[in-house]
Formats: sequence, structure tokens, C-alpha cells
Amino acid sequence: MSFNTLIDQYRNIIESKLKAIYLNGPENMVETSNFVMSAKGKRIRPILTMLSCEALSDDYTNSIDVAIAIELLHNFTLVHDDIMDEDNIRHGQPTVHNKWDIGTAVLTGDSLLWLSLDVLKKVKQNREDIILHFIDAIKLVCEGQAYDKMFEEKDHISISEYNRMISMKTGYMIGLCSHLGAICAGADEETQNKMKNYGLEIGKAYQIQDDFMEIYSDEEVMKKSLLSDVELNKKTYMICLASDIDPKGLNEILNSNETATEKIKLLRQYFEDLKIKDKAIKEINESFKKAESILSEIKFKKSYLFDLNKYLINRGY
Amino acid sequence: MSFNTLIDQYRNIIESKLKAIYLNGPENMVETSNFVMSAKGKRIRPILTMLSCEALSDDYTNSIDVAIAIELLHNFTLVHDDIMDEDNIRHGQPTVHNKWDIGTAVLTGDSLLWLSLDVLKKVKQNREDIILHFIDAIKLVCEGQAYDKMFEEKDHISISEYNRMISMKTGYMIGLCSHLGAICAGADEETQNKMKNYGLEIGKAYQIQDDFMEIYSDEEVMKKSLLSDVELNKKTYMICLASDIDPKGLNEILNSNETATEKIKLLRQYFEDLKIKDKAIKEINESFKKAESILSEIKFKKSYLFDLNKYLINRGY
Repeated sequence: MSFNTLIDQYRNIIESKLKAIYLNGPENMVETSNFVMSAKGKRIRPILTMLSCEALSDDYTNSIDVAIAIELLHNFTLVHDDIMDEDNIRHGQPTVHNKWDIGTAVLTGDSLLWLSLDVLKKVKQNREDIILHFIDAIKLVCEGQAYDKMFEEKDHISISEYNRMISMKTGYMIGLCSHLGAICAGADEETQNKMKNYGLEIGKAYQIQDDFMEIYSDEEVMKKSLLSDVELNKKTYMICLASDIDPKGLNEILNSNETATEKIKLLRQYFEDLKIKDKAIKEINESFKKAESILSEIKFKKSYLFDLNKYLINRGY
Repeated sequence: MSFNTLIDQYRNIIESKLKAIYLNGPENMVETSNFVMSAKGKRIRPILTMLSCEALSDDYTNSIDVAIAIELLHNFTLVHDDIMDEDNIRHGQPTVHNKWDIGTAVLTGDSLLWLSLDVLKKVKQNREDIILHFIDAIKLVCEGQAYDKMFEEKDHISISEYNRMISMKTGYMIGLCSHLGAICAGADEETQNKMKNYGLEIGKAYQIQDDFMEIYSDEEVMKKSLLSDVELNKKTYMICLASDIDPKGLNEILNSNETATEKIKLLRQYFEDLKIKDKAIKEINESFKKAESILSEIKFKKSYLFDLNKYLINRGY
């Protein structure tokens, strides 16, 4: 079986679990929560959780509930972040505050968060341990978002400030997937830590890829609006690099009277000229290499995570 | 020592714990979270938690973290509910979305929620059990708020629909205080259940008192705006009763062109004329009586909860 077929199978399990996650409750919340969860997300986080568990133990079943909980937690952050960023499109469909209203979106995010905790109640092994790590992840995504919001007001964010923020918002959550996948597999503590570090590395690569694609992909491929990051003065990996190297040149583009679409075009050329595009690609590749080196120290029953690395390196959105 | 002095001592402990709850983190979140938690709340929930623990075990110390967690959870719901209800004043100070902006308020509510979970990590005894009950409480307050929101769109809500909604939003959370207080005290399961039922009864009384005071108190005493409930077409105990008995008369007032202030005056007289005011008072008293009867079946080391009943019966806001 090819790796793509394998993760399609995982995706089917995840989709069918998510479809049944919230059937009984106040109709307004059931409707909006299912609207969010039925969108075509990439499901990278639950897939990583299940792959990690199966790679170590030859069985993913112990990790399904945790995988679903992480995907719900991730969607909680998306719904609330979209309110804050006033994003209108996500996963190719309107955001909740856009389709309904802000109050509904606040409550929908809250519902996805308790649903994620509720799913964890079903976990059979190491439940308390898993819940405690999960609580840390909630803390980090909230604080990461707070830094993200704070940075919008600032002109200059250093690359190290950026790295801290992004590891809180994205890296740690992806580290959580491989970490909890290992706990579900019954791995020893040393392996758990290695798995967590592996996840942190691919999480870092994943986010720089996202930043990269915000500039170099088009909207149709990304299934979301690319303008808002520029409009909101969002700090991305490449913006922070440019701001460290050449603040004057960068600000000339960002503070110009051009439209957001035009600014993206200017940034594309600018990042190429200053070799910032190359630097981003190098950074992504280095993180994937580090991730692979960590994996090579772990004794696996299946080599799935090496395949996942290749899959992520080549992702189009 | 008088009961009032006792709960003032509890309050001091709670306030000093809350002051130290969030000192290190993104400055924007630390500022807004502390702004919310430093407001003069009544702290009824943590007080009930600690009183329940001490009444059963002669020692409240085991319950402090749980008490703080519940107060944080309660404030999470207030911050998000205030966004939805567009309330501008809470506990005598501006609400977060009013003083800052909606995005900040969303994130502040989220922060208070993870802070509440984070505090539970410190619990020494029966932690997993406590966290699982806590997750149920998060579910119920979110779903209760969803029903509350849904009811705003409807003309008629029966008193039984109202009772279900309000027990989810308020009753269950107050039941959680006495329930978890009993768990912290190491009480047996039968006692835990009785304590939970006792809390559900005073929770019901407490909420009808709130609804009652929304109409019969003034803003200065309540420390919040009284207009929004009427403006938002909020379903309260008395509105639902009137809607069951005399929908036509009630709608004449609610749909009139009067100002919200004038409508409150008309409702006061109307509820008196239809004996709805009397009925509300009777219902409050009956719940307190039931609560007292449950308490009388429990073997306590201290009689504090009987005193709490008297204190709550006489509360002014």
C-alpha cells in the first residue's frame, strides 16, 4: 500500500469520527460546529498522531480519540483566530463569524474546545497524563495567539521573537501530536521526548512553509484569503528576516499606498532579490533534516514517519 | 467568629490567589486577564467550594485550587457572554470588549479557561476525577449559553425550557462547587451526590434571584447594566412565566415603543399584578428549603452551609 493510500484511510477514519462527534445539543451549536468540522481540512495533526502511534506500536487504534481531540482543539483556535484576524474564508468556505455572527463564532470556538476535552474522557490508557499535556497545549496556543496579536501593533519583530511565537502557535501543537501518539503507543519516556522533539521540528518547517505559501501560492490552491496577513501587518518568517536585514526597504513596500494584492507581488520580487526566499527554503529543509535525524534514533515497527516527512516536504498547500 | 467574618477571610484568600494567578505571559493577556479577575466579583462559587470542603472535613485547604479554577471558569463565561450580549459594564467596570476590542475579549476568555485548567494540574488528590467533572461543567455552560442565545430569537419559551437552560448555565456550575468541595474533602460517593444536589438547588434559587433583581434592583446595586436583558429579549424566569400565563399582555409591553428603562417599570407593575413577583419569591424560597432539607441528611463537621443558605437568601445583589 502506498503512503498516500494509507493516509487516505486514516483521513476516512478521522472524517467519519468527526461527523459523529456532535449530534445532540443546542441546534445552533450542533450546526455551526459541524459546519466547521466538515470543511476540507488537511487533518495533518490527527494523521501525525495516528501515524506516530502505529509506527511505534503497529496499531493506531489507541490514538484515535486523542487524534480527534487535537483536531478539534486546532479548529477551536482557527475559529477564534479568524474572528481576531477578520478572515472571511477558511478551507474554501466562509468563516463562522462571516456566515453567522461574532457571538456565534465565539461560542462555536468554545464548543470545539470542550468537545476536544470531552473526547479525551474516552481515552483508556494514560488518560490523566494525556489531559495534562493537552492543557499545556491549550495554554501555548492561546499565548502564541496573544503574541501574534501583539506583534501586529509593532513595526519590528526579531526572528527570535517570531520563532518563539510560532513555536507556541504551531510547533508545540504538532509536537503534541507525535508526543501523545507515542504515549498512546505505550512508548517509554525517552522515546516520548524524542517524538515530541521530532514533532517540534516538523512543526517549525510546516509553519515556515505556510508563511512561504502565503506569498508564493495563489488563493485557489490555499483555499483561504491571502490578503489579510499583509493587510493586518502579520509578522511572517520572511517579513521578520527582511526586517532584521533591511528594515528600510521592507517598510517602503509595506507602508506604500499599493493594494494588498500589489504588495504581495512586490514582496515576491523583494524576497527573491534579498535571497530571503532561498533562506526560507533552506530553513524548511534544515528542520526536515533535523526531524529525520531524530527519527533515525528511534526504534520503529513501521517507517511511516519517514514517508510523512517526504509527504510534507512536497505539500502544495 | 461570625459567618460574615468567615467568608471575608475566604474572600481574602481567594483574592490573593487570583492576584498571583497570571504574572508571566504575553503582556496583553496578563493585563486583560488580571483586569477581569481583579474586579469586585461576589466570589460565591469559590466560597461555596471551600465552605463545602471545610464543612465536611474541617479543612478547606485541599479545595483552594479547585475553588480558584471554578472562579476562573466562571469568569471565562462572563467575558464571552458579555461579547455576545454586547454588555458594556460588569462588576462596576467596563467589559473587556468595551475597554479593548472584541478580539482581545475572545482571547482573554480563552486565557481564563486555560488558566482554570492549568490550576487544576496542581490538585493533589482525586485530580483526574475532578478534571473530568470540570470538563462536564465546561460543556454545560457552553450549551446553556447556546440555548440562551437561541431563545433570544424566539417569542415563547416555556418555563421548563427556561429551567433546563438556566440549570445548565448556572445551576450546574453551583452544583459543581459543592460537589467538588465534597470530593476535595474526601467524602464518600453518596455524600458527593447529596452535595451536588444541594448545589443544584441553591443554584436554581440563585439564578431566579438574579432574574428577580434584574427587574427589581437598580443598576448601582447590581454593578451592571440592567437594560440589555430587556433590549436583547432575554428570557428570564418571570418573562417565561408571564409568557405561559398571559402571552398577549406580556408582548404588549415587550413590543411597545417604550424605552428599555420604561419597559422595566411597566414589567415591575405587570409582574405584581399577575402575582408573578410573588410566584418568583415563592420559587426561590422553595429551592432554599429543598437545599436545607438535603443538607440536614448529611453529616457535617461544621454547620457553615446552613449559614450560607441564610446569607444567600438575604443577598442584595
